Amino acid sequence: MKISHIEHIGIAVKSLQEAISFYENLLGLKCYAIEEVVEQKVKTAFFMLGQTKIELLESTEPEGPIGKFLEKKGEGIHHLAFAVEDGLQTALNEMADKGLQLLDKMPRKGAENLNIAFIHPKSTLGVLTELCEK
Amino acid sequence: MKISHIEHIGIAVKSLQEAISFYENLLGLKCYAIEEVVEQKVKTAFFMLGQTKIELLESTEPEGPIGKFLEKKGEGIHHLAFAVEDGLQTALNEMADKGLQLLDKMPRKGAENLNIAFIHPKSTLGVLTELCEK
Repeated sequence: MKISHIEHIGIAVKSLQEAISFYENLLGLKCYAIEEVVEQKVKTAFFMLGQTKIELLESTEPEGPIGKFLEKKGEGIHHLAFAVEDGLQTALNEMADKGLQLLDKMPRKGAENLNIAFIHPKSTLGVLTELCEK
Repeated sequence: MKISHIEHIGIAVKSLQEAISFYENLLGLKCYAIEEVVEQKVKTAFFMLGQTKIELLESTEPEGPIGKFLEKKGEGIHHLAFAVEDGLQTALNEMADKGLQLLDKMPRKGAENLNIAFIHPKSTLGVLTELCEK
């Protein structure tokens, strides 16, 4: 598996509007896209920072993954996403062979039309890890 | 304040040696430096991923910041560090003026001889945020 860079960092927030305002007014970044991912019960906002995006995640339903995360842990970093260069399915097969617990055994569509898959944080030293490819 | 990119992502781990092995053998990355920061009671290991580093943090003493974090939350992402382009002290003054709670009012030395300062996660939507300059 070849990872080229950190594709994005996912951050769970209570209010997307307030969080966008924070990142724009206090950190001087610019939100370039807002997208709802219905399947994941989230609304997302994206900021580009060099090679890496910050993806703010607001839950659209309390029982969605971000809703549950916010209830349990509060606002904060939710996941880390790596850009994979040499095929996402190959990377997933390799990880499964090495004994990692995959949350997605096959790539699925995520925000920004990327192919994505998550690995369980139990297999990745407590970091919910996402692999992405264009 | 101008942020150019994500300088690093700090990840708290129980065992640096096990974590280095995980990142090298399972993710295919290469540790390029190990450094102890005595003042912070941590031993760190660095991986370069495009523009951004992954900084693994192992506590050298249970009462240090990483020791406390591990006891409270377990392994996982500890902080997010932005590279500031136009002067760290200026950025800190700007943030203080905007009402953010600074953990360091003046830059101090961090790993890799960077000038760094932390902002309290209460002011940054739950994300312990570091600003860095070379």
